[in-house]
Amino acid sequence: MYSLKFTTESSSNGVVEREFTLGDDVPGVLWSPASGADRAPLVLMGHGGGNHKKHPAMSGRAGRLVAGCGYHVAVLDAPGHGDRPRTAHDEAEIAELFRARAAGEPEGPIVVRYNDHLAQLAVPEYRALLDALQELPEIGSDGPVGYWGINMGTAIGIPFVAAEPRVTAAVFGQHWPDVLAEKAKQITIPVEFDLQWDDEHISREEGLALFDAFASKEKSLHVNSGLHKELPRFEADSAVRFFARHLGAAVTARA
Amino acid sequence: MYSLKFTTESSSNGVVEREFTLGDDVPGVLWSPASGADRAPLVLMGHGGGNHKKHPAMSGRAGRLVAGCGYHVAVLDAPGHGDRPRTAHDEAEIAELFRARAAGEPEGPIVVRYNDHLAQLAVPEYRALLDALQELPEIGSDGPVGYWGINMGTAIGIPFVAAEPRVTAAVFGQHWPDVLAEKAKQITIPVEFDLQWDDEHISREEGLALFDAFASKEKSLHVNSGLHKELPRFEADSAVRFFARHLGAAVTARA
Repeated sequence: MYSLKFTTESSSNGVVEREFTLGDDVPGVLWSPASGADRAPLVLMGHGGGNHKKHPAMSGRAGRLVAGCGYHVAVLDAPGHGDRPRTAHDEAEIAELFRARAAGEPEGPIVVRYNDHLAQLAVPEYRALLDALQELPEIGSDGPVGYWGINMGTAIGIPFVAAEPRVTAAVFGQHWPDVLAEKAKQITIPVEFDLQWDDEHISREEGLALFDAFASKEKSLHVNSGLHKELPRFEADSAVRFFARHLGAAVTARA
Repeated sequence: MYSLKFTTESSSNGVVEREFTLGDDVPGVLWSPASGADRAPLVLMGHGGGNHKKHPAMSGRAGRLVAGCGYHVAVLDAPGHGDRPRTAHDEAEIAELFRARAAGEPEGPIVVRYNDHLAQLAVPEYRALLDALQELPEIGSDGPVGYWGINMGTAIGIPFVAAEPRVTAAVFGQHWPDVLAEKAKQITIPVEFDLQWDDEHISREEGLALFDAFASKEKSLHVNSGLHKELPRFEADSAVRFFARHLGAAVTARA
């Protein structure tokens, strides 16, 4: 059982941001509405490779969910990322990725292998995070829970969601099927999945194969023209609407 | 030069509906905002096979665009559809389609061939419709124009948009690439395209091939699980947002 200790608290534009430590050494952040947070739905997010819990992609998505839907949103630094130390294994894998990139070799095999390693460490952390957050009175143990992660956030999120029956809707995208398709076959909740039609790292066939693998009766694929890093900003708005459809309104918004 | 004569006018919930005849014998309908219609963007729609200009899918989409965006929306009965007479050729093709359906044979080859025939008749009608609508003072000749049609509305819309430089954004979906891919290669405007992942008539490969054919720098594909007729209602909301992004606000909404 990991405990959750809040370390900082600040507030801006109706969003309360609290940093915390999960257990001894996993840093995270929880964003909540400044008012009306009681028993609101929760969305857990996973950040991309090389990024961290407070990268603008994370704080921007959190702002949309908190201000737009009245939800709570939490994210952890992944192992070897953000404020967490890198192991010798992390350093070696990152060096190998940079070497392949400089040599013009495919990045996929390295990213797939390294992200799988990180996911094996991160999945129990996310499950412990959910346990701890559901003990907070403003979240509680009976509210809807979503998961949102693209790139490495998908590599961690697919095995997490496959193992975690409390998550009832998820947004994923932009990863390879090699390791993840088998886990995706265990997922039956509604899924929205993003891929880039001109992705220079993940082929169309690979992206479509991962989408196809989800056993969800209700799943949507959003493909946009453009390179790997050109996922349009409006897909974040679409993801927020997806969660609003599936997790429902915050209780206070219903009243 | 076709003239446009209004034949009926009614109003409901802030939407003015005017039926008209284009030229001698092409029936259509124009929906407009009851107030603030001046120089508002225009969306032309094409209905699905076997349907007509005032099918609920048409009036429902029009309601979203008029009430939500302040746009004008117009649709024609396709040749052989709605209030238009069927030729012997129409009757023969429809009989052949029903025969194939009853026999469990693929419908695609018949639909592709028959819709191509109808598109050759309908494209000049839609171009004449646009000419006539742009002469109305509340629309004018310098405003943004969109096109929205799924199924047969795509079979008519792709050759129409390929030939019509006044259209600057289009929503298509759910058709075969056989005839249309060559025309789609001439289209460079932003496109949103819908397909159903479990379509019993159009294979995934066929649907993806038609999306791939558009030369548009900016294009989005929305895939949903489900059969041919199960396109989710929320894709209509997505199309409305797509037009709002690309055609802009009605002038009065800007002021």
